[in-house]
Amino acid sequence: MIKFDSDYLEGCHPVILDLLVKTNFEQTDGYGCDKYCEKAARLILSACGFAGKRGKNVPEVHFLVGGTQTNTTVIASILRPHQGVICAETGHINVHETGAIESTGHKVLALPSKDGKLTAGQIENCYLRLVGDCNYEHIVQAGMVYISFPTENGTIYSKSELSAIHNVCRKHGLPLFIDGARLGYGLAAGKNDLTLPEIASLCEVFYIGGTKTGALFGEAVVIVDPKLKKDFRCMIKQRGGMLAKGRLLGIQFTALFTDNLYFKLARHAVEAAEKIKTALEAKGIKFLFDSPTNQIFPIFPDEIFEKLSKRFSFAFWEKTDERHTAVRICTSWATKDADVEKLIDFFNRI
Amino acid sequence: MIKFDSDYLEGCHPVILDLLVKTNFEQTDGYGCDKYCEKAARLILSACGFAGKRGKNVPEVHFLVGGTQTNTTVIASILRPHQGVICAETGHINVHETGAIESTGHKVLALPSKDGKLTAGQIENCYLRLVGDCNYEHIVQAGMVYISFPTENGTIYSKSELSAIHNVCRKHGLPLFIDGARLGYGLAAGKNDLTLPEIASLCEVFYIGGTKTGALFGEAVVIVDPKLKKDFRCMIKQRGGMLAKGRLLGIQFTALFTDNLYFKLARHAVEAAEKIKTALEAKGIKFLFDSPTNQIFPIFPDEIFEKLSKRFSFAFWEKTDERHTAVRICTSWATKDADVEKLIDFFNRI
Amino acid sequence: MIKFDSDYLEGCHPVILDLLVKTNFEQTDGYGCDKYCEKAARLILSACGFAGKRGKNVPEVHFLVGGTQTNTTVIASILRPHQGVICAETGHINVHETGAIESTGHKVLALPSKDGKLTAGQIENCYLRLVGDCNYEHIVQAGMVYISFPTENGTIYSKSELSAIHNVCRKHGLPLFIDGARLGYGLAAGKNDLTLPEIASLCEVFYIGGTKTGALFGEAVVIVDPKLKKDFRCMIKQRGGMLAKGRLLGIQFTALFTDNLYFKLARHAVEAAEKIKTALEAKGIKFLFDSPTNQIFPIFPDEIFEKLSKRFSFAFWEKTDERHTAVRICTSWATKDADVEKLIDFFNRI
Amino acid sequence: MIKFDSDYLEGCHPVILDLLVKTNFEQTDGYGCDKYCEKAARLILSACGFAGKRGKNVPEVHFLVGGTQTNTTVIASILRPHQGVICAETGHINVHETGAIESTGHKVLALPSKDGKLTAGQIENCYLRLVGDCNYEHIVQAGMVYISFPTENGTIYSKSELSAIHNVCRKHGLPLFIDGARLGYGLAAGKNDLTLPEIASLCEVFYIGGTKTGALFGEAVVIVDPKLKKDFRCMIKQRGGMLAKGRLLGIQFTALFTDNLYFKLARHAVEAAEKIKTALEAKGIKFLFDSPTNQIFPIFPDEIFEKLSKRFSFAFWEKTDERHTAVRICTSWATKDADVEKLIDFFNRI
Repeated sequence: MIKFDSDYLEGCHPVILDLLVKTNFEQTDGYGCDKYCEKAARLILSACGFAGKRGKNVPEVHFLVGGTQTNTTVIASILRPHQGVICAETGHINVHETGAIESTGHKVLALPSKDGKLTAGQIENCYLRLVGDCNYEHIVQAGMVYISFPTENGTIYSKSELSAIHNVCRKHGLPLFIDGARLGYGLAAGKNDLTLPEIASLCEVFYIGGTKTGALFGEAVVIVDPKLKKDFRCMIKQRGGMLAKGRLLGIQFTALFTDNLYFKLARHAVEAAEKIKTALEAKGIKFLFDSPTNQIFPIFPDEIFEKLSKRFSFAFWEKTDERHTAVRICTSWATKDADVEKLIDFFNRI
Repeated sequence: MIKFDSDYLEGCHPVILDLLVKTNFEQTDGYGCDKYCEKAARLILSACGFAGKRGKNVPEVHFLVGGTQTNTTVIASILRPHQGVICAETGHINVHETGAIESTGHKVLALPSKDGKLTAGQIENCYLRLVGDCNYEHIVQAGMVYISFPTENGTIYSKSELSAIHNVCRKHGLPLFIDGARLGYGLAAGKNDLTLPEIASLCEVFYIGGTKTGALFGEAVVIVDPKLKKDFRCMIKQRGGMLAKGRLLGIQFTALFTDNLYFKLARHAVEAAEKIKTALEAKGIKFLFDSPTNQIFPIFPDEIFEKLSKRFSFAFWEKTDERHTAVRICTSWATKDADVEKLIDFFNRI
Repeated sequence: MIKFDSDYLEGCHPVILDLLVKTNFEQTDGYGCDKYCEKAARLILSACGFAGKRGKNVPEVHFLVGGTQTNTTVIASILRPHQGVICAETGHINVHETGAIESTGHKVLALPSKDGKLTAGQIENCYLRLVGDCNYEHIVQAGMVYISFPTENGTIYSKSELSAIHNVCRKHGLPLFIDGARLGYGLAAGKNDLTLPEIASLCEVFYIGGTKTGALFGEAVVIVDPKLKKDFRCMIKQRGGMLAKGRLLGIQFTALFTDNLYFKLARHAVEAAEKIKTALEAKGIKFLFDSPTNQIFPIFPDEIFEKLSKRFSFAFWEKTDERHTAVRICTSWATKDADVEKLIDFFNRI
Repeated sequence: MIKFDSDYLEGCHPVILDLLVKTNFEQTDGYGCDKYCEKAARLILSACGFAGKRGKNVPEVHFLVGGTQTNTTVIASILRPHQGVICAETGHINVHETGAIESTGHKVLALPSKDGKLTAGQIENCYLRLVGDCNYEHIVQAGMVYISFPTENGTIYSKSELSAIHNVCRKHGLPLFIDGARLGYGLAAGKNDLTLPEIASLCEVFYIGGTKTGALFGEAVVIVDPKLKKDFRCMIKQRGGMLAKGRLLGIQFTALFTDNLYFKLARHAVEAAEKIKTALEAKGIKFLFDSPTNQIFPIFPDEIFEKLSKRFSFAFWEKTDERHTAVRICTSWATKDADVEKLIDFFNRI
């Protein structure tokens, strides 16, 4: 069985393992106060175009272990008790984190979305509707906005879409938080027109996902807005996200942000997904979403799906009608070219 | 200006005021441990048909001050951390309590509803979808069901509808909680086919609203299911709902449940609403919801709405199109027949 | 049985009842947006010496129903997630609110106290110890200070003590919150040297207790520091403290702050307590705390306590040794002179 | 500089690294549903003496990343909203987790402790005092007990002490939770008389710390009491503790529980600590606590501490008087014999 279920099926890129082995017996301080975290933070700030910033305006980089933990810590750190976070109804925090946001006391203000994206207009309408309601005090007010890049459906925002969203957010004082659990795969998408520095300048806080892009685990939060920096490490500790051997995160992100490894790994996965997509499209397969990243969502006739399932596994997504099934095919930094070929060959033969 | 905005515009029924005056200088223990609370609880249990129950199966009655407080206390008392409460998207806890439920750590699982009601089928589908999801642990699970009787749109459940809901709830181990902030007005509705004892036997916990039906304030929670009784008073205290001079609640509910006062007051309001409704319908006014209780939702042409607004005030509900406005007209125990006549006359003259 | 257990045994002062009766059928907007709340707020601001303030620096007055609710709402509104509230170990929020503060996510940082009071030095030491700890991020940081005036032991702060505390708080950016559930009784104490305007100028937020000083219920929060005002009404609603018929609170505080009624009622109670204290001291009875307010804590030989208990009830406090019992005798605005005489006579005869 | 600051200074035991390298490109399901987690769970159950259990009484093993996360998840999973957790005032959850327990809504009921241990008597007194208080509903009630083995001060419970505690807990229905972040070092202590199966049979839930005993990270929770098992994975996900590549935890614990590696590593550390202790005692150094585990707390004259600090680093603990400083010397699975010799030599020469 060859698995295309997700992008966290394997361990990590060998460069990371090598560095872990090499540094294994060094003694370092705990909780992220070590030279590897410091170096990784510097590399990330530089990749984000912040190398020139000085003093208290320098964005902060923090390393956490996983995505749910990161989303919860960031959001709970920003909101006041009566505020909620605007989010697409498909957003990870709304549907796949067992109510982690609510567990910190906040409502997720979910807006309808077909492809996983929000529009600037939706956000502004939602904000204005809540703030302008005659029952203002009886209603959860929007305190920030959460989007994912790419989204849970593999789609991405264009530069103009993201700029419009950020403008609306700034106009209304809503910090914009970008969940970048798969950030690399978004940046590596063929039709993407955003760079990492542009992403970093179009939000108040975001994170660069390591878990799904070559690391064993780890998410690097970049707090761009100085107002959001205060005591963030306390929040990490309180929410259980402070790794004792924090250097493991520093080491991994040092490896990922040396020689553009992070971007190379992401590009590899996207190319694999594109290859599969092209092959499927050639045979008339339709897709649930127009996703240019490492996640694609083909709608298979059930008999084809069944045959494929004998040798390949995908994530079931939904029945689109009685005779068709949409699945998610997910490539990753670790996807082997040979496996992609096998999938395409096998498919072409059915 | 004559107000039909809501059912909490005036003070309380004079019988209650008289009893407050009469008992004012008695010395009683605090926090609901007084003879008036005891008496009121007995009267309520009797009205609910529980007079014959004995021992630990006797339902408990608790008195709280307001509705949001009551909803929060009951729901937070029942759910485990990873569970949410199923609710219509129009439910009070979902839209008008500033995220009070979320503030206790729980997601409101809001289901679509046109008229404010849920169906047994919706509830079962929602429960099964969550419990059967292949990502079970990543998803908020349903832990209970919240409905309002009557709903926020003035509609009511029939006996067969409520029975079906309760059956589904019991089948899946979901406690059913009925928000009865306007319970009296539901029971008094012309087309209602449920009695108070039937309501009490078709849920695990519910409350009888006093604030909107003749009391200065106060909601009487009836915990029908013995499993939900444990330490409920601790919950009340923790959520800030334990009144120091608890007897004020006991006194008010004693008055309301003596000589059927509660039901008479409710009937009065419903009759007033029916009279207005009939008059409006006679002139071709349509209504947003088919509500047989003390809340009606006429859709006025804007020029008529404007003229009415000079002498009468209603709660704005929504613009139904560019030239029509839906409002809520709310009668109450305190609505004067003369004011109803004035409204109808004035309307007929336009 | 004549009860001296607490100051919430009776209803309310007749002037309040009269005003409730008189206004009973007026129609007013709900949730505290009525003319009575507005008037009461004005009277309170004036009594606090804020009559001259203008614009956004005017303190805000909000009316809530009870003390636990008020403490929770104020504290949860101020703290960030990783912060706690400094408090005497005897503080009401630490011992008698069923963990209401913790239920909003915050630790109570309880400091030792013999008489219920904190010192400026204690507060500063605690703050500095936490903020200076080498494990800063692993430790709950102090975010504000809570004191009660008078304390739960009936003691009061002198002007110089309170000034010192406020200076320390301002020096370290810690909002000072004064729980004034019995504020009147503190101001009325013989040896008190603080006025209401002075109290109001020596903290960032405080409240004036109505429940224990002549009202049926109600606490008036005064937010002195403009930075703490934002969206406080949302907090009230979320925590279940927003009374639908908010005018009941406005009416009561209007009555209490007309013709100095509040202060007269408090003075009456303190005089009664002083009379009892003098009589007991004359016979050699010792007291647990040096409390000049309406709560006194005599230590009775058990045989005397037993005899007294046949006709009078007090709140048991603690066994001080095998043959002595400390109790709390609590007078109030409603304490009858005749009952005080009976207690003294009965005691003198034993 | 040779560091004795803590037991999380280095990476992990080479056997673990080897296994990570060897399995790196295997494809496994995420979130702990892989064969390595399954195998590790089996090995742990066997080591705990549960190999023979069948059906729903089989204890469950869950793998989380870190200690704070584990403590929070377990405790929040067990308590009802009004309950708190009994704990020594020195307990990790009380002082070094930034209020993580409170962030889930629960009070830590901290009891005084000189050496980090609780007694059965203390626990029972605390429980009875709370449950028997005349203000029961106004007081946080004890819902469970938390102890650490070994404690934060390096001390351990004897079999009779732990049995007494467990008896009291069972008598009063209080689940006993043992924080075993350093469990191995406790079991390896010279004077320890408890085995792992005995520990497992004397509590309702406990965990086996990996982070401090040879793993990169990871804590293995063993839920002994079947009543506490329900939906625990939902709790892990909600609290951010579910690792996407869960196999990393399975692989590590598989390695640790093969060939008794876990116990060998622990024994190594304890022997190193004993060696240092003996050397220091020989020169008259006193210790703050009588700790037989890998943490020892010598009280150095300041001039000696200063000289040692030039070549060795320890965790500062406290100034015991003006001329003495207590530090924590912490050995671990990774402590080199040569470094121990260097420390002893250097010390003996001063």
